[in-house]
Amino acid sequence: MAKAPVVTPRADDFPRWYQDLINKAELADNGPVRGTMVIRPYGYALWERMQQEMDARIKAAGASNAYFPLFIPQSYLTREAEHVEGFAPELAVVTRGGGKELEEPVVVRPTSETVVNASFAKWVQSYRDLPLLINQWANVVRWEMRPRVFLRTTEFLWQEGHTAHATYEEAREYAARIHREVYADFMANVLGIDVVLGRKTASERFAGAVNTLTLEGMMGDGKALQMGTSHELGQNFAKAFGTRYLSGDGREEYVWQTSWGSSTRMVGGLIMAHGDDSGLRVPPRLAPVQVVVLAVKGDEAVLAKVREVGDRLAAAGLRVRVDDRTDTPFGRRAVDWELKGVPARVEIGPRDLEGGTAMLARRVPGGKEPAAVDALAALLPGMLEEDQALLLRQSRELREARTVEVSSVGEAVEAAVAGGWARLPWAVLGEEGEVRLAEHGVTVRCLVAEDGSVPDADDAPGNVAVVARAY
Amino acid sequence: MAKAPVVTPRADDFPRWYQDLINKAELADNGPVRGTMVIRPYGYALWERMQQEMDARIKAAGASNAYFPLFIPQSYLTREAEHVEGFAPELAVVTRGGGKELEEPVVVRPTSETVVNASFAKWVQSYRDLPLLINQWANVVRWEMRPRVFLRTTEFLWQEGHTAHATYEEAREYAARIHREVYADFMANVLGIDVVLGRKTASERFAGAVNTLTLEGMMGDGKALQMGTSHELGQNFAKAFGTRYLSGDGREEYVWQTSWGSSTRMVGGLIMAHGDDSGLRVPPRLAPVQVVVLAVKGDEAVLAKVREVGDRLAAAGLRVRVDDRTDTPFGRRAVDWELKGVPARVEIGPRDLEGGTAMLARRVPGGKEPAAVDALAALLPGMLEEDQALLLRQSRELREARTVEVSSVGEAVEAAVAGGWARLPWAVLGEEGEVRLAEHGVTVRCLVAEDGSVPDADDAPGNVAVVARAY
Repeated sequence: MAKAPVVTPRADDFPRWYQDLINKAELADNGPVRGTMVIRPYGYALWERMQQEMDARIKAAGASNAYFPLFIPQSYLTREAEHVEGFAPELAVVTRGGGKELEEPVVVRPTSETVVNASFAKWVQSYRDLPLLINQWANVVRWEMRPRVFLRTTEFLWQEGHTAHATYEEAREYAARIHREVYADFMANVLGIDVVLGRKTASERFAGAVNTLTLEGMMGDGKALQMGTSHELGQNFAKAFGTRYLSGDGREEYVWQTSWGSSTRMVGGLIMAHGDDSGLRVPPRLAPVQVVVLAVKGDEAVLAKVREVGDRLAAAGLRVRVDDRTDTPFGRRAVDWELKGVPARVEIGPRDLEGGTAMLARRVPGGKEPAAVDALAALLPGMLEEDQALLLRQSRELREARTVEVSSVGEAVEAAVAGGWARLPWAVLGEEGEVRLAEHGVTVRCLVAEDGSVPDADDAPGNVAVVARAY
Repeated sequence: MAKAPVVTPRADDFPRWYQDLINKAELADNGPVRGTMVIRPYGYALWERMQQEMDARIKAAGASNAYFPLFIPQSYLTREAEHVEGFAPELAVVTRGGGKELEEPVVVRPTSETVVNASFAKWVQSYRDLPLLINQWANVVRWEMRPRVFLRTTEFLWQEGHTAHATYEEAREYAARIHREVYADFMANVLGIDVVLGRKTASERFAGAVNTLTLEGMMGDGKALQMGTSHELGQNFAKAFGTRYLSGDGREEYVWQTSWGSSTRMVGGLIMAHGDDSGLRVPPRLAPVQVVVLAVKGDEAVLAKVREVGDRLAAAGLRVRVDDRTDTPFGRRAVDWELKGVPARVEIGPRDLEGGTAMLARRVPGGKEPAAVDALAALLPGMLEEDQALLLRQSRELREARTVEVSSVGEAVEAAVAGGWARLPWAVLGEEGEVRLAEHGVTVRCLVAEDGSVPDADDAPGNVAVVARAY
């Protein structure tokens, strides 16, 4: 008799596999208000690790954390014309507060460029106050018609960076630095996702930006996920809010700005990039639990051993959990840790005690074999780094295998609808081609230069459009 | 000519001193929507340090972080009668979302007991799922009529713990454990505030709780600040939301619950407990910057030296900032670090280089004297611990000096109005006495037992009421 699958197989129904995995691995639930989510402890632990890794990189890039209000006067949103046009349909509006109708309704922040600029306009006086480099970790709300947990939720958690600079060049270089040193570095080296870095076409830009840099990851079904964006805002918000500085030679100038964000959507990307039919596979550098030490049975000697081994591995600097819940059957617990994607499982039963051995299961490559307990602390760190590298390699191989070079819009649509990415010259596609793609639910994910770098302009010669269906 | 004071002296106008300090030390601004605040980078750095220290203690108490939605269906709030009565006047209500009027308005969370119980009711099946110990770091909204930055703001940041237990005793012990091991430990040993632990009288309890434990700190003007609370919720929310478990002997039982919170209000408490007429004084264990190394002048040799000293002190495990902004006058920078309350200032000028000395200024006790640069890494850690202890001692001495034992309600009012705390037997005061206190803006901050411990009941024999005006 075949074993019933733990989750719907990916090949049968990818969206259902995704939802099954989120339920079974206890990552998140739907909240009571449509489109909201409850992030359960294990899902939140993944997000906390993302925050830690990202926060260190953001601080290394010179930005400081701060906090701006959730509530924004409705009038602020309307000051930047494109910005309000982009966000108006998604706003949640508070009309009553403290038992009264409000004179001016307030908007729940969908993003904070406007309220941040109201502060920047006060804080920035002279060139000495620049660059001003700020980040905040916060919740934002964008009313979502077709919600999907982690990917599109009415409320989500994110970081949003906001900076002001004295010159166009400086702002531009900072947006690119965040794109590269914070986002790309984190996504490749921690999330193990081989993202493509590029620039958005005009129609896909952030509302109010003059340029949007993006990182696109390929998911297990060949669709794309926008994993983060870094925007050059030019002087659009500075002019709308009067954010000016006195230059070294005594002139009043508007600042040049950037903003950049990444969110709990990355948890969805993690699931869809690395998950398989047994559940999640968490990259070891990210994993909140890198190694779980399981007691196969509840003998006192076994319990003492798993705790001792757990302590030794923790002392070796690994993030360890000891599973001694032996009133739950061993098989069920093993399946549960597999679902949760913990990179290494050390299983110790009564028969292992004498020989000083354990079974060591590796989640990323799969497979299980005996190992000497005393060797684990020396063995595991290198093994986990191998598994980290394997995930990135698999991500790159998937992307390469499912990306085709095409020369017409029709071929691009065909490749994207079949579940893959297509690359074709932007000169062939153009804005008219984008309209044709849209008819098939296909978009330009980004433009990349011939040599794979990020182009300086939409129409730079040799630009290639990466085209796909996206989440 | 007398030097103009940097901030309004505390003795002249305490509330104005508080507001001046917040402005000048760049801790926070008012937000554009009345009652909201912008937490500036240095203010937020204080909060981040509080979060780190608290989060470690919360996790050590066995709780896991998770995240529940900002938006709560209005109907949820009404399920627990006392809860809705307590919070209804403070609610912010979203009536429009995604461009449409909502069928059921949603409330912006003022606290999360209701939405958490909706999840707990799904997650808890049997006694094996208990205890369920959850914490979240989040923003909450309570419409505030008389806002004051950090102390009473329409939106504030906090942590809120929510737990479910199989028995009354277990829940009760857990609420007491958080009170003691998380809050009291953090406030005394990190914030350096000699808080009084007690229980609230019935009229001061959290809306929906059967018992509220509190920690009250004395501020520099002799008023009290509630620094954190831990509640026993009994089965009130469990019954309202059907949060039940199957016991070991097969019966369906309602869970017993706790909730507990502390917020950005603690930043206000930190300011008012330790600040003086030169600004903030930050306890070294909390301080985001423990030592600032200042270049008195911009000579290359001086700049090289401050960077070298900064690196050495950082390598010794101290949180260090190097201030080499020599285009700003030295005196202004020194005043600024004093305002920000950085515990130690190491000042290096051209004349110090030869002798290998520096001026070492200590913010907590005050004063400044020369020190050998090579000795600083060995000297500073012990010095900072002395300063930490001094702040706690000063906090205790202030409280003792300004607390009087009284035997009538009249005397209690007099002491509180004069700017101090009064202690009198609860048997003398009682609920009728509380009404009389309220006429003078005075409240019972908490009840303590004769031996200083936390009483098990309001009317336990020997209970003493601690009475004061409060923020």
